[in-house]
Amino acid sequence: MEKEINSIFDIKNKITELFGIKYPIIQGGMIWCSNHQLVAAVSNAGGLGLLGSGSMTPDELVSEIRKTKELTSKPFGVNIPLLYIHSDEVMNIIVNEGVKIVFTSAGNPKLWTSFLQEKGIKVAHVVSNSKFAQKADEAGVDAIVAEGFEAGGHNGFEETTTLTLISSVRRVTAKPVIAAGGISNGRAMLATMVLGADGVQIGSLFASSKESSAHENFKNEIIKANEGDTKLLLKKIVPVRLLNNKFSEEVFNAESAGKSREELSEILGKGRSKVGMFNGDIENGELEIGQVSALIDSIKPVKAIVDDIILEYKVARQQVNIERFNF
Amino acid sequence: MEKEINSIFDIKNKITELFGIKYPIIQGGMIWCSNHQLVAAVSNAGGLGLLGSGSMTPDELVSEIRKTKELTSKPFGVNIPLLYIHSDEVMNIIVNEGVKIVFTSAGNPKLWTSFLQEKGIKVAHVVSNSKFAQKADEAGVDAIVAEGFEAGGHNGFEETTTLTLISSVRRVTAKPVIAAGGISNGRAMLATMVLGADGVQIGSLFASSKESSAHENFKNEIIKANEGDTKLLLKKIVPVRLLNNKFSEEVFNAESAGKSREELSEILGKGRSKVGMFNGDIENGELEIGQVSALIDSIKPVKAIVDDIILEYKVARQQVNIERFNF
Repeated sequence: MEKEINSIFDIKNKITELFGIKYPIIQGGMIWCSNHQLVAAVSNAGGLGLLGSGSMTPDELVSEIRKTKELTSKPFGVNIPLLYIHSDEVMNIIVNEGVKIVFTSAGNPKLWTSFLQEKGIKVAHVVSNSKFAQKADEAGVDAIVAEGFEAGGHNGFEETTTLTLISSVRRVTAKPVIAAGGISNGRAMLATMVLGADGVQIGSLFASSKESSAHENFKNEIIKANEGDTKLLLKKIVPVRLLNNKFSEEVFNAESAGKSREELSEILGKGRSKVGMFNGDIENGELEIGQVSALIDSIKPVKAIVDDIILEYKVARQQVNIERFNF
Repeated sequence: MEKEINSIFDIKNKITELFGIKYPIIQGGMIWCSNHQLVAAVSNAGGLGLLGSGSMTPDELVSEIRKTKELTSKPFGVNIPLLYIHSDEVMNIIVNEGVKIVFTSAGNPKLWTSFLQEKGIKVAHVVSNSKFAQKADEAGVDAIVAEGFEAGGHNGFEETTTLTLISSVRRVTAKPVIAAGGISNGRAMLATMVLGADGVQIGSLFASSKESSAHENFKNEIIKANEGDTKLLLKKIVPVRLLNNKFSEEVFNAESAGKSREELSEILGKGRSKVGMFNGDIENGELEIGQVSALIDSIKPVKAIVDDIILEYKVARQQVNIERFNF
């Protein structure tokens, strides 16, 4: 049997308490999508906006943090992919600019967690399996983001889906858990919280929002996407979920033909995600998006997105008391 | 926005009503695991047992149906993979032996649905995407099983996970929906019902049960499995989720090297699933199991499995009313 879920008897939601926000909805800090407009809009709507530092130079990050502060007085944070950027410089910016919340991913949570916490900064770490969740717990993080196979962008090697992952992670940690991957509506939010999550991180839906810094062409492709229109590719390098297009087909065909890691790296080249997601070249760019793109039908302002999720969540929560669930 | 979920205001659960069972828990009709002992045990415990006809000769199926009837007076059914067996002969057996419930999969639901329904037989059809769900709806099936990427055995090409799939399927049909893939406990059951499912189909957990006809060696491998210990393989033939072993590694390596459909078929050979799941050759056999194998820790009797799921479901349902969910 599962360990008892400690959080279940708390009087308050652990995520709203931890970050000082109204709703336990985190906006994933996505490269090329998550600049100050998106982040401030999410935080102003009652969630937690995260700047995606993975696609910013240090100077741009400073500027984005300052611009976010001009647009919101609510809590916001920065996502830092530890392996991909100059972490030392970024961490100093975080401290100097007075950022109070950091989400780390793609790296060892032991490296920076206590450094940040000593400065009064809350730290969450993103994992794709329960072994890494345990390591994040041991590193003393304040919360753990458990991201499943259906999520867009970088992904785990085990391909564990959110439904399975939350149960697994809940067995190894009593820390607040944030579910990520496959969540684009209030029912999915409640479903993952029933599994034991304390809140959710939403990526694709916010990437498609009016305020997202993603190129309009990319947003239109998200709207058009159907089931099966994303694929987990580049597994020999680092697994990443991409929207099907000319580029992803080239990668898929190369993988099916058994091309090596080196040959795949050459096809990938440099700066592909900027080309696609920011510059709007939807044929040759790398378009990172989750499976829920199939459920996204229009480009909406962030405020409407958050309000709709919370309304649907509340209705779904009421409905759990009705006869359909009674036997 | 999603279409309103019609079923939500029903007074009774649609699945318990449809099949005349106590709990909306279906035991997946799995090859080599689902003989009369398992089926009768599930039906006696309040769920719906399904014989897995895919691994039975017509004579064996007749015998299994008769033996099931000796062990239970409760409703039970037969799973029929339409593409893989002599459907005509099997359908006549179903009618002649007085089976009242049929789950069809891997084929066109239009072929047999009305033939069976005219004989007073309830028909459910298994799908992996909403396009097929719509076709099943049009074919007039009584219920739709929506099975996600995390499920064991045969799987969809789109790789849509259960969390995403249930929302998608719920948008295209008002029929009762049964969620499958990733469900091995009461929280996951409630979670998928929050998404809009009316009941669940559980495979892996029942495959590992005391009464399952799977070989003891296979059951012990399920118990030992961790996250990442299953993989979706054979995508160039028909995607199937397998437990990692010597055979699956051979397939994985062949696929990574870009081997053709024909070469993969040769590696697969014939009767691999019997070798593994029924004869217990855990190195050379094909071991079909879902991602939730990582959450299964012991071989339990069916009655205890069903009771534990229902207890956890009820506790989880109560807990949705507490403060953790309130904001």
